[in-house]
Amino acid sequence: MTIRVGVLGAQGKVGQAICAAVRAAADLELVATVDKDDALEAFTESGTQVVVDFTHPDVVMGNLEFLVEHGIHAVVGTTGFDAARLDRVRGWLADRPDTGVLIAPNFAIGAVLSMRFAEQAARFFESVEVIELHHPNKADAPSGTAYRTAGLVAEARKRAGVGIGPDATSTELDGARGADVDGVRVHSVRLAGLVAHQEVLFGTQGETLTIRHDSIDRSSFAPGVLLGVREIAKRPGLTVGLDPFLDL
Amino acid sequence: MTIRVGVLGAQGKVGQAICAAVRAAADLELVATVDKDDALEAFTESGTQVVVDFTHPDVVMGNLEFLVEHGIHAVVGTTGFDAARLDRVRGWLADRPDTGVLIAPNFAIGAVLSMRFAEQAARFFESVEVIELHHPNKADAPSGTAYRTAGLVAEARKRAGVGIGPDATSTELDGARGADVDGVRVHSVRLAGLVAHQEVLFGTQGETLTIRHDSIDRSSFAPGVLLGVREIAKRPGLTVGLDPFLDL
Amino acid sequence: MTIRVGVLGAQGKVGQAICAAVRAAADLELVATVDKDDALEAFTESGTQVVVDFTHPDVVMGNLEFLVEHGIHAVVGTTGFDAARLDRVRGWLADRPDTGVLIAPNFAIGAVLSMRFAEQAARFFESVEVIELHHPNKADAPSGTAYRTAGLVAEARKRAGVGIGPDATSTELDGARGADVDGVRVHSVRLAGLVAHQEVLFGTQGETLTIRHDSIDRSSFAPGVLLGVREIAKRPGLTVGLDPFLDL
Amino acid sequence: MTIRVGVLGAQGKVGQAICAAVRAAADLELVATVDKDDALEAFTESGTQVVVDFTHPDVVMGNLEFLVEHGIHAVVGTTGFDAARLDRVRGWLADRPDTGVLIAPNFAIGAVLSMRFAEQAARFFESVEVIELHHPNKADAPSGTAYRTAGLVAEARKRAGVGIGPDATSTELDGARGADVDGVRVHSVRLAGLVAHQEVLFGTQGETLTIRHDSIDRSSFAPGVLLGVREIAKRPGLTVGLDPFLDL
Repeated sequence: MTIRVGVLGAQGKVGQAICAAVRAAADLELVATVDKDDALEAFTESGTQVVVDFTHPDVVMGNLEFLVEHGIHAVVGTTGFDAARLDRVRGWLADRPDTGVLIAPNFAIGAVLSMRFAEQAARFFESVEVIELHHPNKADAPSGTAYRTAGLVAEARKRAGVGIGPDATSTELDGARGADVDGVRVHSVRLAGLVAHQEVLFGTQGETLTIRHDSIDRSSFAPGVLLGVREIAKRPGLTVGLDPFLDL
Repeated sequence: MTIRVGVLGAQGKVGQAICAAVRAAADLELVATVDKDDALEAFTESGTQVVVDFTHPDVVMGNLEFLVEHGIHAVVGTTGFDAARLDRVRGWLADRPDTGVLIAPNFAIGAVLSMRFAEQAARFFESVEVIELHHPNKADAPSGTAYRTAGLVAEARKRAGVGIGPDATSTELDGARGADVDGVRVHSVRLAGLVAHQEVLFGTQGETLTIRHDSIDRSSFAPGVLLGVREIAKRPGLTVGLDPFLDL
Repeated sequence: MTIRVGVLGAQGKVGQAICAAVRAAADLELVATVDKDDALEAFTESGTQVVVDFTHPDVVMGNLEFLVEHGIHAVVGTTGFDAARLDRVRGWLADRPDTGVLIAPNFAIGAVLSMRFAEQAARFFESVEVIELHHPNKADAPSGTAYRTAGLVAEARKRAGVGIGPDATSTELDGARGADVDGVRVHSVRLAGLVAHQEVLFGTQGETLTIRHDSIDRSSFAPGVLLGVREIAKRPGLTVGLDPFLDL
Repeated sequence: MTIRVGVLGAQGKVGQAICAAVRAAADLELVATVDKDDALEAFTESGTQVVVDFTHPDVVMGNLEFLVEHGIHAVVGTTGFDAARLDRVRGWLADRPDTGVLIAPNFAIGAVLSMRFAEQAARFFESVEVIELHHPNKADAPSGTAYRTAGLVAEARKRAGVGIGPDATSTELDGARGADVDGVRVHSVRLAGLVAHQEVLFGTQGETLTIRHDSIDRSSFAPGVLLGVREIAKRPGLTVGLDPFLDL
């Protein structure tokens, strides 16, 4: 039996890609698409079971209230959720204990896994550094993902009582050793021809372990969204971040 | 308080490296070293708490019987353990419920972690291939580690109902697509200047994840052995493989 | 002073990208665009100095005859040139000694350079292997580029009297060691999430050299085409392949 | 016919490795080895044709004066040559026009080639950055090789009129974007388990080219030294640096 899926923000770039991905999946059926001027009732009328929402912070709360109220599960990539908003969603869900909402800032499974693996490996190696490589139009260095990865790694090492890696540098040209994020060095490369890439390098006596993630296309969110659609019915309540759905 | 450590096979190449690593660790104390012609009583007389055994299949069973009988924990890198031998070790341990024995074929933490991560990532990607790269004196292709990694990945995909990756190859020069290990393609590079390296490549729409392990020195077993020494007292009974000690 | 540029096949995917690239270049001016139903006279009337032709084997010879006759330089990415066609172009150029025509099968500068560097490095290393990695919809394995690269490398080694690299493999799972192209092993990876990538690995005692080319976008021909446009006036006659324009 | 080779500093670590390499080469014959307390006449008495000198700045000038005077070619890896010393060597060679002396700071062929290729590729790409990765006991960041590579690349770009690569970074955590060497960003990774590695990354629209050199063993000078020994008789006079011997 297929899952009946609806898409909110169906005309947007991301929305169109998700519609295409749902249509291409044998176990999913696209039964309703809604954009700016369409009524949300399209979902109730069509018997939609799960709605994917990649819309806008201004409208996403209204969408979610409607969906939860009607017992429709939601998989949400829209941004702008703070603690207060998450609490409101939890409040709605309290009245609908069988309904699930997944809100995730990043649906790229490779990115989620590489952060998780980096965190797990962190305490077993003397040294760890992060290199992130992006297109030259990026405004921030390091990237948000690299900053978060370094933070997770640093925290895992602290919990395990592992100190900062050895470093005998005594003569440094300013900036050569990268940025210091909680004791983890992070290097930001900006290069034409790249999209979004990250390497976490771990090293100890005689061996190194490298976890590399390459994203060359914004469509890389699609497999993660479909995973969310397939799993959400089994996970009532609010889930923040894709990690729990990966069952690692 | 330091852990009192003994080394069996202390004159061998590996034994010497382990003695050096124990001496260099602030929380460990090297209290007894034993080689071919020395008496095992050196361990009981010195109050040794954990013995590391990198000896020979011919003598390791005698060593273990003595150690377990005297309640001394053992961390063993010696090869040649089959099911019958493991059962005998379990038998001895039944009488000494507080004593731990760890027997592992591979103490390189990076190798153990990369196999584990590959297994965890396996079901989330459409495609997976393995490239292993070694010095040109290696007799077997693919390497044992690559063969085992591909098998673990294939099994994880099967359990999750994930099929073989897409491949439209219709014209192939013999061997170009590598060896087929349970549906996972494995490529073996043999190159002067290399030691032992492995990449597991995962790919799905728009993104790839690569787990790479580089081992450039046989000393890479040391950190794994020390981990075993530090943890063995908390893990009575027989443990096969380093994985459980990593608490992933 | 800017160069006055025309584009043939201006409505095609490649043609549109070239028009955009010309418009974005400060030293070039797009003065005429011609597609299927347009007259070639647009080039003579607009004083075009260089025409870029990405059209079709059926029409490219007519285009070139017109351009050469009118002393307009041509940079050609259209395929289908055999020895006979090249001779005819040379014949037309004999009457116009100041006019230049560049016909190249590959305008991606990174690809051209990596082949060249591989050829130059070939004789200095004991071992060499090629790994090419592509999207899983590719029909041939190895890729044409990898096949040509391996051939160039093999030939360079033969000229220098360097034998085939050492390889002690005695037990091989069928295909593990890749395809044999003139004594150079070539490995073809097919992975969702990739586009077109190639690594040439060289190794000798204690060191390796890797030349890697990543192409993630068909637009990678643009910089090579612009290089051709800027240089063609200084290189009268027929040039086949972008290499000579790189002045290495 | 074999070349008759002598080694100066034959008892040192490097000297021993060179003796072994000469012995292993079918076209070379080790006919004299000299160390601290031995007379240089061993070379003249044995009919040595080429001497390899890896000794000390304090004695190398005396060695060279003797060798050139007796028409014996020299391949020199000893450090400490400034302009004045090079001029003195040239002076001696003026009287022996058939004798050759090669003085090189780096005999690792992979390192020499990767610098050369980087210089050649420099002007064809919008962006270029250098990542060097070393063991954590290294005192300087960036490495001397990375510093020189970035300088060569920057100079090649300047000569070709290519500006600094695009970079929209507006928010930077101090050091994230690396050190600035003449407009080329250089990143220094320090990681246990590494030896000496360098990547030069070039990028332009849709494609990147990476030149990577890995040195995992100090023996990597041997192939370059043997190349020098084989070629020096054909290159009379003073040569500084291995590059000219590569005939690229």
